[in-house]
Amino acid sequence: MAHAISVERTTANKAKPDASTLVFGKHFTDHMFIMEYDAGKGWHDPRIVPYQPIPLDPAAKVFHYGQTVFEGMKAYKTPGGPVLLFRPFKNLQRLNRSNARLSIPPIDEDLAMDALKQLLKVDEDWIPTTEGTSLYIRPFVISTQPTLGVNPSESYYFMIILSPVGSYYAEGINPVTIYVEPDYVRAVTGGVGNAKTGGNYAAGLRAQEEASGKGYSQVLWLDGVHRKYIEEVGSMNVFFKIAGKVVTPALNGSILDGVTRDSVIQLLKHWDIDVEERTISIDELVEAYRKGTLEEAFGTGTAAVISPIGELNWQGDKLTLNDGRTGPLSSRVYDFMTGLQRGAVEDPFGWVTKLE
Amino acid sequence: MAHAISVERTTANKAKPDASTLVFGKHFTDHMFIMEYDAGKGWHDPRIVPYQPIPLDPAAKVFHYGQTVFEGMKAYKTPGGPVLLFRPFKNLQRLNRSNARLSIPPIDEDLAMDALKQLLKVDEDWIPTTEGTSLYIRPFVISTQPTLGVNPSESYYFMIILSPVGSYYAEGINPVTIYVEPDYVRAVTGGVGNAKTGGNYAAGLRAQEEASGKGYSQVLWLDGVHRKYIEEVGSMNVFFKIAGKVVTPALNGSILDGVTRDSVIQLLKHWDIDVEERTISIDELVEAYRKGTLEEAFGTGTAAVISPIGELNWQGDKLTLNDGRTGPLSSRVYDFMTGLQRGAVEDPFGWVTKLE
Ligand SMILES: Cc1ncc(COP(=O)(O)O)c(C=O)c1O
Ligand SMILES: Cc1ncc(COP(=O)(O)O)c(C=O)c1O
Repeated sequence: MAHAISVERTTANKAKPDASTLVFGKHFTDHMFIMEYDAGKGWHDPRIVPYQPIPLDPAAKVFHYGQTVFEGMKAYKTPGGPVLLFRPFKNLQRLNRSNARLSIPPIDEDLAMDALKQLLKVDEDWIPTTEGTSLYIRPFVISTQPTLGVNPSESYYFMIILSPVGSYYAEGINPVTIYVEPDYVRAVTGGVGNAKTGGNYAAGLRAQEEASGKGYSQVLWLDGVHRKYIEEVGSMNVFFKIAGKVVTPALNGSILDGVTRDSVIQLLKHWDIDVEERTISIDELVEAYRKGTLEEAFGTGTAAVISPIGELNWQGDKLTLNDGRTGPLSSRVYDFMTGLQRGAVEDPFGWVTKLE
Repeated sequence: MAHAISVERTTANKAKPDASTLVFGKHFTDHMFIMEYDAGKGWHDPRIVPYQPIPLDPAAKVFHYGQTVFEGMKAYKTPGGPVLLFRPFKNLQRLNRSNARLSIPPIDEDLAMDALKQLLKVDEDWIPTTEGTSLYIRPFVISTQPTLGVNPSESYYFMIILSPVGSYYAEGINPVTIYVEPDYVRAVTGGVGNAKTGGNYAAGLRAQEEASGKGYSQVLWLDGVHRKYIEEVGSMNVFFKIAGKVVTPALNGSILDGVTRDSVIQLLKHWDIDVEERTISIDELVEAYRKGTLEEAFGTGTAAVISPIGELNWQGDKLTLNDGRTGPLSSRVYDFMTGLQRGAVEDPFGWVTKLE
């Protein structure tokens, strides 16, 4: 069923950035989707309009109490080819799980999907086609009620904005270095760590800044209770290859249920590679490293897809993985995933959605 | 030193709400203060302007990554009397501690104080003078850079808005009932629990909503590691009187360093009442209750000032405090604090700032 989404086209198209100079999340397309929610009325007035500033009352709850959720996905296109999406419903379902955790009313996933497809049609010219580039899609919800009581908002905006992007990390597919954070904590069981909500990212900024200052690209979080179990990286889930087996932290309530993570697990199983979801302590990693069985590590996430890890710093000890070079499994997973997403590799899973 | 703060007055004054119908944080005055930050330029253009919506790019970081901080304080006035502030520098200092934790550049506290005083002068007519009312002051910082990389913003707004308010709780000085939260966690050591940032409040919404559904006014948080030590209430610190002694959770890094909390501790000492800052387990409270030595409990915070607690619900067990009525110590502290803040009680501490 097509939903009644009105479209107002811009009269002033922006200049498109050069594909070779794209950075993550800096340029935005000509249009955006917006829909409003009001208590008693529900979600209403879905529309595509020119990309534009949104005026909000200074008391809007989003400015004070962080009641927000977001998603991140990508659209791919090859020159002359169709527009491809990767498991988009997984993201819309997760959006609703985040909504539930943040006391935000659910969004009709079919309507959101329709909105996304129509928006992509309107701004199709913005999807870059060079290898390594894509159109990053950012659906998000903000709370707009202009009152300062600490309680769920009675009004919201749901929006989708689009950004042509290159590699997420300056390193591209080259290995990143990771600082295992001993002091700061991102999230804890019982909290909102498994929701994609702003506060989780705000909580990580300071640690990220300090790690950058030490020359590390990203922070690897440990759990907030025991301070020893591996959680995830800033915006990636994490996988380790130890003695031939792949392990990744189990979904314990405090890490994000990554779409890339889920896909990589299925892919490894499809390839008959052993993969376990379980708790992994930093001590286990250090010990495997000492024994020489910590073979590879990589992060998974929509922005970077697969990001090989070249070094882990744990309290000053530097664990160099695969001599700091991209390992064979990381490469294989990277090639498959990016190929699949770009439509260059056959899709045995039914993950790729072609836009008509 | 007076700072160069420009003032643009409104040409259309709003109607003031009736003092008898005031609710918390719903009405705002005619003007607001705003100042901008840009990397390389610092904080600039401090100005008082008519209260108005702020247009932000949909990619502004505040909408996505929750990089915000805020403060809450109050101005009091009696008919014909001066405008009184309560320890305002404590709030501005805490704002800067929150800023540091959230990787937001610090704000000149003297400038902020000047801005607040000038804004209060411009909107002085808005300060309600009926007993139990005051002008709530909300300074806050939002991150405005329109880029989606997860890193500290390179631009911010610092704003102050004002809201004439009545009692924070519908209960007024009457005791509130509190649900001790067994499952959800607000914050954990190593996180941002001691910063006044939006994500902490977003993290509490769902638990608050569920507690309301059970008929409770507020949630009492336990620590995220052991799940048994008392932390604080949604927007209040908490005090218990056990066998004649007053105890309150120590500042452990995951609770807010409340200005009212600090003031009450000093006041109790001034009165020669024993007061301890230490860890307090829920088991200790239950045991004291069984022994009949849990005499009183109350919350402290700018919004409610002192809020007696009439009942604690811990996993279905209802601990009724002082027969559900306001206890003598709670009353005494309430009367003193509110009297002091309104200028009706002599100030032995030098806490009250009179505006010229
Ligand atoms: C905290 C966090 N973990 C993991 C991921 C990876 O999830 P996905 O593969 O769905 O992009 C993300 C984001 O994309 C994230 O923000
Ligand atoms: C989480 C939290 N705890 C405690 C308090 C009490 O602090 P204060 O007495 O400074 O208002 C507040 C807010 O005002 C709060 O938001």
